[in-house]
Amino acid sequence: MNLMKYIESKKNDEIKQLAKLSATKNIKKTGTYLIEGFHLVREADANDQRIVKLYVTENNENDRLAKKYHDIVTGVSDDVAQALSETKTPQGIFAVVKVQENDDLTEMKGQWVILDDVQDPGNVGTIVRTADAAGYTGVITSLNSADFYQPKVQRSMQGSQFHMPIYRMDLQKAISIAKKSGLKVYGSEVNKEAMPYNKLEKTDDFALVMGNEAHGLGADVLSETDQNIFIPILGKAESLNVAVAAGVLMYGLKSI
Amino acid sequence: MNLMKYIESKKNDEIKQLAKLSATKNIKKTGTYLIEGFHLVREADANDQRIVKLYVTENNENDRLAKKYHDIVTGVSDDVAQALSETKTPQGIFAVVKVQENDDLTEMKGQWVILDDVQDPGNVGTIVRTADAAGYTGVITSLNSADFYQPKVQRSMQGSQFHMPIYRMDLQKAISIAKKSGLKVYGSEVNKEAMPYNKLEKTDDFALVMGNEAHGLGADVLSETDQNIFIPILGKAESLNVAVAAGVLMYGLKSI
Repeated sequence: MNLMKYIESKKNDEIKQLAKLSATKNIKKTGTYLIEGFHLVREADANDQRIVKLYVTENNENDRLAKKYHDIVTGVSDDVAQALSETKTPQGIFAVVKVQENDDLTEMKGQWVILDDVQDPGNVGTIVRTADAAGYTGVITSLNSADFYQPKVQRSMQGSQFHMPIYRMDLQKAISIAKKSGLKVYGSEVNKEAMPYNKLEKTDDFALVMGNEAHGLGADVLSETDQNIFIPILGKAESLNVAVAAGVLMYGLKSI
Repeated sequence: MNLMKYIESKKNDEIKQLAKLSATKNIKKTGTYLIEGFHLVREADANDQRIVKLYVTENNENDRLAKKYHDIVTGVSDDVAQALSETKTPQGIFAVVKVQENDDLTEMKGQWVILDDVQDPGNVGTIVRTADAAGYTGVITSLNSADFYQPKVQRSMQGSQFHMPIYRMDLQKAISIAKKSGLKVYGSEVNKEAMPYNKLEKTDDFALVMGNEAHGLGADVLSETDQNIFIPILGKAESLNVAVAAGVLMYGLKSI
């Protein structure tokens, strides 16, 4: 197949702009972000995400997706692919995807995970992936959490952002919507009134709020929770990694 | 306090050798590794680890540990601390610690986690930390797993290596010891005979074997397990991160 357009040099202006799309401020400015690799690009396509541009190396020119998106596909050299990639051996397929504009949350049903300033990109991404695996309805992060669309978060999410709604919003507002919608709000925190997660009576509709890696939940959030829960520490570790704790709680609170 | 010895320049030979201690081959060669920060150094001290050398910046010269280890402490400049550190703002305390020589495993009791070629340092470290939190007896990794003593693993372990035995050994041998000791061996894998982890009858003595991030458990290991178990995927994600899966299983299999 002859691609309409081909870029040879990583110093090309369009490629330089693309490379900058890993910065949160540029994701915000353009309303788009860059994904790479067959798994993510296929997931984006299969889940009706808006693919704005597609870039493929020569060996992928005949891929089904290159054909489907023939009007917006650009061929790139291996050199360009290496410059755009987060990995050492790029698969040679990249897409610019429109950011999901989820600003319409007015009611919540089912099971939600809410993150209060979780800052490590790997933790945020892993929690979204786990929420997807555990069949949760959606994930909300505070405005100070790691941004969903930065490359490290995406690598950990593994495409789970295409399977369920993810929101980034004011946390007080999110908790207020959860409560108005009749969800129980569980904070993960050790305090006098907290109970071990496995002693909690299971419900179908709830929001689980996880705190910052170092400081836990903010006082403003804690005061809004219906019940605080904790994972018993049975050995000598001081705490659990927040993504592991979220996983233990997400599965532990489900009726399975 | 006047330290007997002080190193100003990061080009000093001793400092150059220290900086190389992050490489696995040098850890093996010297039988020692480098830890940094108050939390880890205090944990090493409190848990009877053999501290061979201690390095402190000027503001830490009067710390309790600098006094306790006065015969092996060296003062270093902020410049040196920065050169040795894995973080942007070092706390200014480092220790060279003797690697635990755990090669004496002949019997196993209680609950063990065994890792079959888990390669991401963060995953190995996080699993050790979780095993500690969940009150497991010990952790064993295969010879091809990420080495316990490299800096990224240590950062994720958060000192849990001081709380319980960790072994790196041939996996067939480990599983053979587990079986001879009467432990049930659970493999985490989806196959025809596997069952959901939450349906498993709980026992007090078992070994949970987790597989490689991409390839799961090796066929040689799978053929040796007594029962394979899996975590039900309730949404659209293809799989879970191995450290999260290990956490869900470790807590899920405990009688709490």
